[in-house]
Amino acid sequence: MKTIQAVTYPVHFQNKAYQELSNLIETNNYSTLFILVDENTLEHCYPKFIPNLETDKRIELIEIESGEINKNLETCVGVWNAITELGGDRKSLMITLGGGVITDLGGFVASCFKRGIDFINIPTTLLSMVDASVGGKTGVDLGVLKNQIGLFANPEMVIVDTDYLTTVSKREIKSGTAEILKYGITYDLKLFKEIKNSKELDINKLIHRSVSIKNEVVLQDPKEQGLRKILNFGHTLGHAIESFYLESEDKENLTHGEAIAIGMVCECFMSSKLLGFPSEKVSEVKEVVLSIYNKTNLLKEDFSAIMEMLKHDKKNVNGQVNFVLLNDYEDYKIDCKVPEELIIESMEFYNS
Amino acid sequence: MKTIQAVTYPVHFQNKAYQELSNLIETNNYSTLFILVDENTLEHCYPKFIPNLETDKRIELIEIESGEINKNLETCVGVWNAITELGGDRKSLMITLGGGVITDLGGFVASCFKRGIDFINIPTTLLSMVDASVGGKTGVDLGVLKNQIGLFANPEMVIVDTDYLTTVSKREIKSGTAEILKYGITYDLKLFKEIKNSKELDINKLIHRSVSIKNEVVLQDPKEQGLRKILNFGHTLGHAIESFYLESEDKENLTHGEAIAIGMVCECFMSSKLLGFPSEKVSEVKEVVLSIYNKTNLLKEDFSAIMEMLKHDKKNVNGQVNFVLLNDYEDYKIDCKVPEELIIESMEFYNS
Repeated sequence: MKTIQAVTYPVHFQNKAYQELSNLIETNNYSTLFILVDENTLEHCYPKFIPNLETDKRIELIEIESGEINKNLETCVGVWNAITELGGDRKSLMITLGGGVITDLGGFVASCFKRGIDFINIPTTLLSMVDASVGGKTGVDLGVLKNQIGLFANPEMVIVDTDYLTTVSKREIKSGTAEILKYGITYDLKLFKEIKNSKELDINKLIHRSVSIKNEVVLQDPKEQGLRKILNFGHTLGHAIESFYLESEDKENLTHGEAIAIGMVCECFMSSKLLGFPSEKVSEVKEVVLSIYNKTNLLKEDFSAIMEMLKHDKKNVNGQVNFVLLNDYEDYKIDCKVPEELIIESMEFYNS
Repeated sequence: MKTIQAVTYPVHFQNKAYQELSNLIETNNYSTLFILVDENTLEHCYPKFIPNLETDKRIELIEIESGEINKNLETCVGVWNAITELGGDRKSLMITLGGGVITDLGGFVASCFKRGIDFINIPTTLLSMVDASVGGKTGVDLGVLKNQIGLFANPEMVIVDTDYLTTVSKREIKSGTAEILKYGITYDLKLFKEIKNSKELDINKLIHRSVSIKNEVVLQDPKEQGLRKILNFGHTLGHAIESFYLESEDKENLTHGEAIAIGMVCECFMSSKLLGFPSEKVSEVKEVVLSIYNKTNLLKEDFSAIMEMLKHDKKNVNGQVNFVLLNDYEDYKIDCKVPEELIIESMEFYNS
């Protein structure tokens, strides 16, 4: 598949990407390569990756524990200490090999180590391939608040090799599909219809299309002043729901995609009430979402805790929650204020 | 004094700066002003500052404990949590009011909160006025390693009001003087001679000159590829000595300036041995340093621990320590390798 050129870095696909990686390492004469993995990517992805890496540079492996719960500053401090003890300097390169936790955290760690070393992202999950890999967002959670601490920082290169997807669960693939759905609903109706109507998804094609879309959007609005906010569609309420489930010890966590899918259904509903988004399209989105994900039963008694989570959304200004809503498919409106009752009504609609 | 225009922001001096501040706050329509202080600047500087601040925005005060020992990620997490609990959003403004710990840490905290909010530095010590205030370096220490974690990030404005200097100790003023000396030795011989020959220093003039020099240097080389490295003169060994004293529980800490002054004497000595820097100038620098600072007795038995600290200097590449040395006054050479014996000899020279 064709290389996609992002703002300051390329996204290379499949096998030829590794040749580009070797060239980059040679050209920049890095002193040491630090490869960041978790226990899963160490076991399943590292053995696929390492034979592709042609270099005589020193390689050091740093392992963190998997899971969103470890995407925090404590883990960063552990990695910073490890790099320090292993003699990392400003000419070190960080290679992140993993899902969104690894790529987001690794990019942040690299960007802050001695005021910044180069890094390369190798996403190994569908979610990180289609979302985290392009756009330059790095960061970690603060308590249960997702990505509260972080930076805009661009990798030197992103490598998308769909071979790694054989290492992840079906549930993870479904999770990533939510982001592809989002690109479809907000930016590329053809893509949405393709997902709706396909019996079997051509995942390689969907990934390439998704990365292209995200890149187009980010190139036009790197700092999220306008257009880029469409990437938050479904994420405002979705993140709040995700955080709430993460925090609730008696509930099984939702994947990011499961939460965002619920968020998209709810935000379509809000859109229909506030902006005249056609109600049959609300139903269409709900139907597609429920054809992919099991229905989550949002409990009435949890609504107020979810509303509380919304108050910490990064897009809020002056305590006002800002939604990105839709006038229609591919037609968005940013900075929408939504009455609390309507947010609750939207969750009831999802439940119904 | 005349405003100095740095890369992306102005440095305003004395009283008229506050009018500029009020204008900036009005223009940007910030949602909340977070003022970061420590217990000292809260008591002595905040009461001077607040009557000058004309605004109807919400003001929230965040206090951290003073001291280099608190310039760490734990303190950052405390400030991030405080901003979060106080409803900080992306339109919040951080105003740092204090010495280098406050301005460095506050700039880092602001730059990483929700991927970056605006900040303004109001340095209240001589050291932070002439050093930390310009140049866009933010960061915190990792263990005893100074500024190991951080970023290049520019404030919206810097306010230098020398009235705050009445609130700091003589020892702090002396500490800041080391940086002014450094500008003199490496970049502006006239300034060095002025310090050498003056009975009474015109501190306002020295500050304005120092900020101008640092700004000139940073504008020419923002990312420290070449010229900017002169700002590290005296700092390579100086930082190692400072860290060593900070870590040694049985020794009184050195101020940054005291450590850097020792570093400058030693690095002049290394320069004379390696680059032919004239030996009478080594003596001149040592003499000026000892006319300002009490002599520290560097113990032979501590040399190896100090050498150990050098190994973590941020400028190192491939485990090699890189010094900035001098061919002559105002004439530098970057990336100099210095044999371990000569580093030790230079400390013995300082002691002699």
